[in-house]
Amino acid sequence: MKVKVSRKAHFNAAHRLYVPEWSFEKNDAIFGKCNNPNFHGHNYELIVSVTGEIDPVTGYVIDMKVLKDLIKSEIENAFDHKNLNVEVPEFKNVNPTAENISVVIWNKLRPHLADDKELEVVLYETPRNFVTYSG
Amino acid sequence: MKVKVSRKAHFNAAHRLYVPEWSFEKNDAIFGKCNNPNFHGHNYELIVSVTGEIDPVTGYVIDMKVLKDLIKSEIENAFDHKNLNVEVPEFKNVNPTAENISVVIWNKLRPHLADDKELEVVLYETPRNFVTYSG
Amino acid sequence: MKVKVSRKAHFNAAHRLYVPEWSFEKNDAIFGKCNNPNFHGHNYELIVSVTGEIDPVTGYVIDMKVLKDLIKSEIENAFDHKNLNVEVPEFKNVNPTAENISVVIWNKLRPHLADDKELEVVLYETPRNFVTYSG
Amino acid sequence: MKVKVSRKAHFNAAHRLYVPEWSFEKNDAIFGKCNNPNFHGHNYELIVSVTGEIDPVTGYVIDMKVLKDLIKSEIENAFDHKNLNVEVPEFKNVNPTAENISVVIWNKLRPHLADDKELEVVLYETPRNFVTYSG
Amino acid sequence: MKVKVSRKAHFNAAHRLYVPEWSFEKNDAIFGKCNNPNFHGHNYELIVSVTGEIDPVTGYVIDMKVLKDLIKSEIENAFDHKNLNVEVPEFKNVNPTAENISVVIWNKLRPHLADDKELEVVLYETPRNFVTYSG
Amino acid sequence: MKVKVSRKAHFNAAHRLYVPEWSFEKNDAIFGKCNNPNFHGHNYELIVSVTGEIDPVTGYVIDMKVLKDLIKSEIENAFDHKNLNVEVPEFKNVNPTAENISVVIWNKLRPHLADDKELEVVLYETPRNFVTYSG
Repeated sequence: MKVKVSRKAHFNAAHRLYVPEWSFEKNDAIFGKCNNPNFHGHNYELIVSVTGEIDPVTGYVIDMKVLKDLIKSEIENAFDHKNLNVEVPEFKNVNPTAENISVVIWNKLRPHLADDKELEVVLYETPRNFVTYSG
Repeated sequence: MKVKVSRKAHFNAAHRLYVPEWSFEKNDAIFGKCNNPNFHGHNYELIVSVTGEIDPVTGYVIDMKVLKDLIKSEIENAFDHKNLNVEVPEFKNVNPTAENISVVIWNKLRPHLADDKELEVVLYETPRNFVTYSG
Repeated sequence: MKVKVSRKAHFNAAHRLYVPEWSFEKNDAIFGKCNNPNFHGHNYELIVSVTGEIDPVTGYVIDMKVLKDLIKSEIENAFDHKNLNVEVPEFKNVNPTAENISVVIWNKLRPHLADDKELEVVLYETPRNFVTYSG
Repeated sequence: MKVKVSRKAHFNAAHRLYVPEWSFEKNDAIFGKCNNPNFHGHNYELIVSVTGEIDPVTGYVIDMKVLKDLIKSEIENAFDHKNLNVEVPEFKNVNPTAENISVVIWNKLRPHLADDKELEVVLYETPRNFVTYSG
Repeated sequence: MKVKVSRKAHFNAAHRLYVPEWSFEKNDAIFGKCNNPNFHGHNYELIVSVTGEIDPVTGYVIDMKVLKDLIKSEIENAFDHKNLNVEVPEFKNVNPTAENISVVIWNKLRPHLADDKELEVVLYETPRNFVTYSG
Repeated sequence: MKVKVSRKAHFNAAHRLYVPEWSFEKNDAIFGKCNNPNFHGHNYELIVSVTGEIDPVTGYVIDMKVLKDLIKSEIENAFDHKNLNVEVPEFKNVNPTAENISVVIWNKLRPHLADDKELEVVLYETPRNFVTYSG
């Protein structure tokens, strides 16, 4: 009896999308307004889902409070009210697209979960744009 | 041409999370505020999805009105404005966590659907906590 | 330049609607399923709004963190995961309808705000039922 | 590293659900109010998801602007503010149920995506009724 | 102690915006795609609010079930799955813009409420377009 | 017959909250994480409402397309994907709090509306924090 347990979280951040090796013109052609050198930002909505067997005693797959605290310590504390390009080491050489941010989040959470649990990350960059990564 | 058809429903209920065999202190350590012996409650949002082939004449996988009525008769009538621990027999010996509620809902709906249909249940306990069960 | 600043919060609670002086039958006729003696519950969504002049230095009417903490200490700590009828003194002799809860919330918050600020409380009992009280 | 990229879009349309070969009475029994010969309508919310490898240079699976423009040119321009039965050729002989509309949308988008990309369409007919089609 | 009590409801309908006395070209210039002679449609979300004193015995301004049933009998039964231009008499000589629909709804509900109650109607034509009318 | 017509819009931006005359420590004490010198950002949701008489011929208070285009030309083009502190002249000497942004938006829109129309601006900085300004 495998159940997927999902927890919604939130962080705000600034970022800029560009490839440092490219000219400004080429970055502008590909990334448009997202290439603004002065940065822009988003309210990122994050849904982290953990799939596994229900514990027959507690009725939990994972304690939501444990999951909530894990998201806070690993993701919100690292990303919230930050400039992703400037202050988050994972994006030193990685363009902080929604795709790449979702992979970074997945990689940061995965070691903290038991091996028999599956992990999925959904990241909303805006209410109309979002990505899903499952490893 | 398999399509998944989803219908959103709603019920309000009171519940308490605890393991009767445990001391109050142990329940408090695991379930925190959810162990309140006087109960607390939620607006549960429920999404029931049925997957199957499109009927080539009607264009339906399943008539939404049929699905809506099934959810009403089997789930809303049994759970809405109820105390899950006290009044719903399925939780007499089962802790009414979101995980267990989703499994109970799935088990109550499954016999009413044709064998070639797949069933998925998503249950929101709060806007930030939800679970998914597919059998 | 008066601006209204609004902060959304959340608490879960159990309650029962009834008039103790009435028979069960009369309560049943008026309050229906909400009169369940075993209680039912809701995810209450709360929007607290404070209206006042913008501070010309900070640009704040009220610091959102201050407002958030006030809602937490006065309302969430008192109501969250509680049985309103049994555990919240304000409802000892007051029926915990959404209307009455909104007035109790307003009365609890009002003394903590400066006299030149206006206060409004919006309380969602369900996504489809909500009330507004402004004193 | 496969990521699913999702874009939300929107169109309004009128439609009628019925099988032309059936009597009005039989259509009425199956489709109820949706069989109104004068039509009714919906705000359709559409989520189009494309799954593929992240481009190691740009960090994109697909440029959201490209996906947004594709949905606009292929779907919104064809369906928005239209009468699906009368004005959209794909429904000349196909009942415009949510299921069939999702298949038509998928078929219209599929040729515009690279072969190594997967496509999923979610279509909300109302906030409570929606369908998912993945080919 | 005046409280505003709000109830959310829903109906789907087809409509066309145009002034019969104008040429098609003039209607096209003013109403654009909304002037489609084959109609288009919407999921209208409706919020009806009633303001009044809290009854000191029941704790209600108005019983939500009474308000829900009133909206169903007066508005949903009249408008849901209808063609507003063709089938709703109030729009025989009135253009069914969101503004005019909100006034018609207000006029239909007002006689059913006590004189000391105030009435407000909010009507969402789409999630991004809505109107408010208070008489 | 005055009706309020509301249109929802959206822009993303980076900002930093601080008072240049203050020390970093004082700014940190008042603005906390919002004082990050590397900026953070938000998805701002904007609701612009115009109140006035319904035109008896068209049934419009204001054409939604006109309102949508006005918001685009005056607000979205000026703020979207921008750094409010660095790139928007109105915030050269004004701290870009939600309160101040709502006033700036109101002041930019007001001259474009007829004198007999009233204007209200609601600005969501996050889904839980928002402000309202009516002049």
